[in-house]
Parts: sequence; structure tokens; C-alpha cells
Amino acid sequence: MIKPLLDRVVLKMVESEETTKSGIILAANSKEKPQVAVVVAVGPGGNIEGKEVVMQVKENDKVVFAKYAGTEIKLDGEEYIIVKQSDILGVIE
Amino acid sequence: MIKPLLDRVVLKMVESEETTKSGIILAANSKEKPQVAVVVAVGPGGNIEGKEVVMQVKENDKVVFAKYAGTEIKLDGEEYIIVKQSDILGVIE
Amino acid sequence: MIKPLLDRVVLKMVESEETTKSGIILAANSKEKPQVAVVVAVGPGGNIEGKEVVMQVKENDKVVFAKYAGTEIKLDGEEYIIVKQSDILGVIE
Amino acid sequence: MIKPLLDRVVLKMVESEETTKSGIILAANSKEKPQVAVVVAVGPGGNIEGKEVVMQVKENDKVVFAKYAGTEIKLDGEEYIIVKQSDILGVIE
Amino acid sequence: MIKPLLDRVVLKMVESEETTKSGIILAANSKEKPQVAVVVAVGPGGNIEGKEVVMQVKENDKVVFAKYAGTEIKLDGEEYIIVKQSDILGVIE
Amino acid sequence: MIKPLLDRVVLKMVESEETTKSGIILAANSKEKPQVAVVVAVGPGGNIEGKEVVMQVKENDKVVFAKYAGTEIKLDGEEYIIVKQSDILGVIE
Amino acid sequence: MIKPLLDRVVLKMVESEETTKSGIILAANSKEKPQVAVVVAVGPGGNIEGKEVVMQVKENDKVVFAKYAGTEIKLDGEEYIIVKQSDILGVIE
Repeated sequence: MIKPLLDRVVLKMVESEETTKSGIILAANSKEKPQVAVVVAVGPGGNIEGKEVVMQVKENDKVVFAKYAGTEIKLDGEEYIIVKQSDILGVIE
Repeated sequence: MIKPLLDRVVLKMVESEETTKSGIILAANSKEKPQVAVVVAVGPGGNIEGKEVVMQVKENDKVVFAKYAGTEIKLDGEEYIIVKQSDILGVIE
Repeated sequence: MIKPLLDRVVLKMVESEETTKSGIILAANSKEKPQVAVVVAVGPGGNIEGKEVVMQVKENDKVVFAKYAGTEIKLDGEEYIIVKQSDILGVIE
Repeated sequence: MIKPLLDRVVLKMVESEETTKSGIILAANSKEKPQVAVVVAVGPGGNIEGKEVVMQVKENDKVVFAKYAGTEIKLDGEEYIIVKQSDILGVIE
Repeated sequence: MIKPLLDRVVLKMVESEETTKSGIILAANSKEKPQVAVVVAVGPGGNIEGKEVVMQVKENDKVVFAKYAGTEIKLDGEEYIIVKQSDILGVIE
Repeated sequence: MIKPLLDRVVLKMVESEETTKSGIILAANSKEKPQVAVVVAVGPGGNIEGKEVVMQVKENDKVVFAKYAGTEIKLDGEEYIIVKQSDILGVIE
Repeated sequence: MIKPLLDRVVLKMVESEETTKSGIILAANSKEKPQVAVVVAVGPGGNIEGKEVVMQVKENDKVVFAKYAGTEIKLDGEEYIIVKQSDILGVIE
């Protein structure tokens, strides 16, 4: 389990199949990296380099995030992406 | 439905035909991406990295936005662009 | 009509002929984009990302603005340029 | 007449002849743009993007300014350069 | 022993074998630099260029950090990487 | 005479001969621009873009300054370099 | 003797031999510039462009510093490097 620092958020990629079922497909060509993921862990936010950051996403939120943002890691066979909250564009409801 | 975070705004592209009816055409050559869209969802604004951002657009506003700004996604067959409010140049009235 | 957001200003290009009559010609070679325009709409200014911006130009001001600044759009056959006030260098009186 | 906005300053290039008489020549090779000019108009300064700027040059000051700084325009046959005060390095006395 | 300054953190690379046992493998191809390390020393944080930085990692934390971040040094045969705390993405628990 | 604005400092290059006498030679190859100079004029400092700058060098200080910093000008046959105080690394005593 | 300004620190390179004795060798290939040095002079710190900087190294500290940081100069046959304190990563104890 990864506990993100500061304003970081750990995301788990949504499988392509799951993406299709929910009707969400990226507009760009299908070879590009999908940008929809589920939040699995949220950093504490707080005072980050002198600026107050309030975390606005929570576990299990399905989110859209900025292409090329974040760092990918694998843990126990699962792929995760760690992004800053500011790289998250919106929550899908 | 996408609920934008922070100062993000979800835009739906205005169809080319609709653009023409309203008399709005981009000055640049016609192969460039149109920059007129309708606001479909507005983030909460508020304190963003220590700066107070007040949202000044609202749903259904027809807006002009900066070329190359934002991230495109498709949801249930519709194309959207998510931009920061600061990428919106003006509202067409 | 475009209502600019924040510190944006909508400019209408001054026709070349009009530019010549008023004696204003750009120093650079004549193929470059002219940089003199008339203000047609002014954003509200105010608190923009935590900084207070007071608008100092008004409708009908003839202004000089920074080359390459702004975004061009066409509305009802007229060409406009939307710039930030900080891209406006001075007012011609 | 150009009335500069904010912390802008309008400069009129000093003729090469005049430059020579006053003994001022740029160290770089003579094909480079001269960097000595006379102040013809000074912006109001004041609060600029949240920072207080006090104007420290005045009309008729002969100043040295940073190479490549500013925007050149011609007005009624005279060449001017509009720079930010921070591009002015010093006043020649 | 290296005592890091400011918001710096000294990391000791986790051996590949150890990485595998704990089930952590980077998603990217195996030739890339591993990004998992153990914290061996933590700077004092405090007021850093006018911003208050609170250190949130401690000795023996196993952390994920941003690729390409930090400076590698060898001390008494051990390899270390010195990063800023802001280059640490999360703690593995 | 040049009166520097803000946090600018006017430097007069130390002649190579003089440099050698005082035992100061740049480590880099001898074709590089020497970086030792004498202060001939100091700007007033004060509030510069919202930040208080206190001038810490004075006339006749012999200083080391950052390579490539500053603008060179010639006045009455003497070569000067105008730098920001922050480009001055130290005073030689 | 060089008295550094502001948050600058004067470093004297540690000889390769000395480096080896203390067991410190850079991880990168041996042709790269060593990054271990001894502090010979420390600037006063204080308010630097509106930010309070407290100096945390002292004379005779052996420090690790960021590759490519600083400016090299020779004084009386000795080589020095002048860096900002923020380029110093840690103190070796």
C-alpha cells in the first residue's frame, strides 16, 4: 500500500473494458494512454511550500487526469499512477 | 457527467454549423481547431494554491478559449474539453 | 459581442489605411502584423490569482500592443484580438 | 503621443552622431543595436500584479537599456522603443 | 554519514532482489532506474526561502520517488541518492 | 557617469595585468571573459517588485561576478558592465 | 580572501586523494567533476529578495553539492567554487 505525501494522489488505471462499459473513451486516438482512473489513496494536503492545499478527491472517486502527468509504479502486480491533485481535472459522477 | 475540480471548466465544442449560424469563425485557417464552446460544468474555484479564484463563467455560457488549451475527453459519445478558467478569454453575448 | 474575462481586453485592428493617416507605422518591415488597435471591450479586472488588477484602458482607446500577443477571432465578419491588459504597451493620444 | 501603461517607459533612440559626441559607444560590435535612449514618456507605475512599482526615471533622462528589450514603433516619422522600467539599467548623468 | 540540509532527504537504493521480494517492480521497462528507496537521513525542514516546510518522512521509511530526481553519491561503498522531500511521491506501508 | 537603477551595479573590468598582480586568475581557460571587477556605482536598492533589496556592495569593492551576467557598455573610452547585485558572488578582501 | 554575498558559500575542492581516504567517491564515472568540498567562507544570509535565508553551514564543514552548481575561480593558486547555500545538499559528518 502506498501512502502519498503532500498533495499527491495514488490512482489505479481503469481497465479498457470497464472504460467502455461506462461510455468513457478518450477523444484522441486509441493508442494514447487512457486518462481515467480510480483514486486509491489521497495525500494529507495541508501547507505545501507555504500554500494551503485542501484535498478535494477521495478514495473510489473515478477521475479524469492530465495526460503525461504522474509517475507509474507496479505494486503486487497492480499498476498505479501517482499524480498531484492539481493534475486531476475532474471527477466523473 | 464530469464535475471539474478547482478552477477547471468543462466545455462542449460548438458544432461547425452552429458556429457559422452565429457568425463566429476563427480568423486563422479553417483547419485549425475551433475555439468556441459552451460551458457544461464549472469547478468550485476557491483557494487554489494559496490564491483565491472566483469563477466567472456559468453553465450555458458560450465562450472563446485559448487555442491548444485543455484536455479533450469523450463521454457517452460527446466530446468535451476541460480547461482552466484562465484559459477562457471571453463570453459571447 | 465578446465580454472579456478577468484582465482581458478585446481589440479591433486598425485598418492599414487608417494607420497611415494617423502617421503610425511599425518600425519593423511592412510584412509584420500591425500592432495598433482600438479597444472594443474591457474585462472587469479585480482579484486575479491573488493579485489586484486595475484596468487602465477603456473602450475606444487606440493602443499599441506587444507583437504576437493575444488570440485572433472573427465575429460577424470583423477581426478581433483578445489580449491581456499587460500586453498593452501604451495608449496613443 | 504615446502614454505608456503601468511600468512601461517610451524611449526615443539617440542618433549615432549624438551618441558619439557624448562619448558613449557600445562595447559590442558596431552592427548591434545601440542601447542608449532618451525617455519621452513614463507610465504611472503603482500596483502592478500585486507589486508596488515606483517609477524612477523621468522625461529627458538619457538611459542605458537592456539589449533586445522592448518593442519598436514609429509615430509621425520618429522611432520609439517601449520598455518596462526594469529593462532600464541606468541613467547617464 | 551525510546530514542533509533544508528539505533534503538521503535515500539508500533498495536492492533489486529486495524489491522483488516485497512485490514492488516499476511499471516501466526493467532497464530504467528503480525508484524505490529507504530513507537514511532527513533534513530539518523549517523556513526554506520564506516557505515553511514540514518534513513528513522519517528514517527507515520505504519511499517511492520521482525518476531522475536527486543526486547520487557513494560513501564507504554504499550508494545514496539525495532528493528534496517534494521529489518523494509516497511511503510504502 | 552612469547612475544605476534599482539593484543594478556598475562594474569596471579589472585589467588582466592587475588581475595577475593580485593573484586572481579564473580557473577556466584563459580565453574566457574575466569575472573580477571594481564597483564604480551602486543602485539605491529598496523595494523592487515588492521585494526589499538592501545593497551590500559599495564603490571600490573588488568583486567576483557570474559569468555572462550583465550588459557591457563603453563610456568615454572606458568599458563598464552593469549587473544586478544578485549576479555578484562575493567581495575580494 | 573572498567574502561571499547574500546566501553564497565559498567552497574549496577536496583533493581526489583526500576524497578516497575518507571513502567518498561519486557514483557516476570518474571523469565527472567531484562534488565534495570544504566550506571556506559563508555569506551572511538574511533577507534575500524578500525571503529570509538562515545559513546552515559553517567554515570547515565538508559538504556535498549539486553537480554543475556554482562558479569556479582561482585565488593565489587555490581553486574555489562559489555556490548558493541551496546548492549544498548535505554535510558529511
